[in-house]
Amino acid sequence: MSGSIVIAGLGPGADELITPEVQAALAAASDVVGYIPYVARIAERPGLTLHASDNRVEIDRAAHALNMASEGKNVVVVSSGDPGVFAMAAAVFEAVEHGPAHWRDLDIRVLPGITAMLAAAARAGAPLGHDFCAINLSDNLKPWALIEKRLRLAVEADFAMALYNPRSKSRPEGFEKALDILNDACSDDRPVIFARAVSTPEEAIRVVPLTGCAPELADMRTVVLVGASTTRLIARDGTPIVYTPRSVSS
Amino acid sequence: MSGSIVIAGLGPGADELITPEVQAALAAASDVVGYIPYVARIAERPGLTLHASDNRVEIDRAAHALNMASEGKNVVVVSSGDPGVFAMAAAVFEAVEHGPAHWRDLDIRVLPGITAMLAAAARAGAPLGHDFCAINLSDNLKPWALIEKRLRLAVEADFAMALYNPRSKSRPEGFEKALDILNDACSDDRPVIFARAVSTPEEAIRVVPLTGCAPELADMRTVVLVGASTTRLIARDGTPIVYTPRSVSS
Repeated sequence: MSGSIVIAGLGPGADELITPEVQAALAAASDVVGYIPYVARIAERPGLTLHASDNRVEIDRAAHALNMASEGKNVVVVSSGDPGVFAMAAAVFEAVEHGPAHWRDLDIRVLPGITAMLAAAARAGAPLGHDFCAINLSDNLKPWALIEKRLRLAVEADFAMALYNPRSKSRPEGFEKALDILNDACSDDRPVIFARAVSTPEEAIRVVPLTGCAPELADMRTVVLVGASTTRLIARDGTPIVYTPRSVSS
Repeated sequence: MSGSIVIAGLGPGADELITPEVQAALAAASDVVGYIPYVARIAERPGLTLHASDNRVEIDRAAHALNMASEGKNVVVVSSGDPGVFAMAAAVFEAVEHGPAHWRDLDIRVLPGITAMLAAAARAGAPLGHDFCAINLSDNLKPWALIEKRLRLAVEADFAMALYNPRSKSRPEGFEKALDILNDACSDDRPVIFARAVSTPEEAIRVVPLTGCAPELADMRTVVLVGASTTRLIARDGTPIVYTPRSVSS
C-alpha cells in the first residue's frame, strides 16, 4: 500500500488560474489538508475527505498529511498561490527533516501555482519586468530587524519588491515601519501597488505614490508591490499601467 | 471594430502547467505573436494566424501585435513562463508608452503563468520558501556592474536567488563571473540547483554545492537557484530535497 503526498498551489483565487496538473491531483486525492479558507475552495465529492485546520499550525498539519500518506492515502496539501512561496511546501519539508526516517521515502511532489505577486503584477501591468525580490513582512518566524535590513538592501539593489503578508490584526505596526524605511530611502513618487484578493469578487487594485501610502491600504489578503527607481506609469483612463522597463542604461 | 491584446504566459513547457485562463485566450485568438520556440507550442487551427519572430526583436514584435489589435484583431502575445518576469509584458508596455496615443486605449490584459523559478523550485523541494530575489544575468539591456552589485547585495541580504538567463553562446563569461562572486561571499556548501527545461522531455535537475558549480552546467534553458545561508538538504535515495525553512532565529 503506497500512499503519496502532493503539495499543490491553488493560485490566487479564481478556478481559471488553477493549473490542470493541480486539478488532476485534486481529482485523484483521497484526502485534502490545509488552512480553512483554502480547503473551502475544494469541491466535496464521495471518496474525498477534507481536513481543514487553523492558521499557525503548519507543522502539525504537515505531520498529519505525512502520517496519512504513510498509511497509503493519496493526500493533497493545498496552499493558495504557489506552495513554495511563503506557504506549505517548506513546512512539509521541515516536518520531513525532523520526522521519522520513513517519511523521506514517501512519494512527495510539489505542484507549482500562480503566486500572488505574479497575479498582482499582471493586473497592474509589468512592475516585476526587471530584477525583483519577494519579502514576507510577517515577523512571526523571523526577527523584525532582519526584515528592515532586507528592505534597506533591496532599495540599495534597486529591486522592485513584492511584500507578502504586509499587515494583520496581530501585527498592525510592521507595515507602517516598512513604509517609513521606504519613504526614507526612495523618491516620493515611487509607485506602490496594493493588490487585494486578485481574481476574486473582492479584487481591488490601487496604485499610489509612496508618500500617499497609508498602512490601512493593506491587510492579509493584500500583496504590495513597490516599484524600482526605473518603474514607469502610463497614464490612461482609469488606473494607470505600471511597468518596469527591461533596460537600465549604463 | 474593437480588437484586443492579451500577453499570456505558457508556463515552463508542459501543457498541464498552462492555466485554463490562458487556454481560453488562445482559443479566442485570431493572431498569436511570439518568439519562434514559444509560437511552436501553439496548435494550428482554422482562423488562427501564427506570427513567429526571432529573439531580440521584442519591441518590433510588440508594435506588430499592437497594430493588429488596433485593426480589430484578437491578438495573443505568448511568452514562456510568466509574461511579466523577464518576458514580453514589459516590452509591450514600453512600446505603448512610446507609441501612438490610441494604443493606450486598447483592451490590453496580462495573463500570468508559472514562471521558471517556481517550476524549478517545486521540483527541487522548497528552496524559495523564505525571502528571495530574481535576477536576470543577461547584460544585453543593463550594465554588468549592476548585476554584480545586485548579486553582492542579495548575498548580504541572505536572499535565496533565482538566476534567469544565466548563460548563452553570445555571453559565455558572465555566469562564470557570477559564480566567482558567490564563491567569494558564501560558504562552500551553499546548495545550488541547476534546473533545465523543467516539465519537458529534456528536464534535468542537478543539486551541486557552490564549490562544485561549473559554468557549463547552465545554458539558456536553465534557471539556477542559489540557496540562502539557511537552506537545507534532506538526503534520500536519488536527488536530495532542498528547502529553505520559514524560520530564522534571532
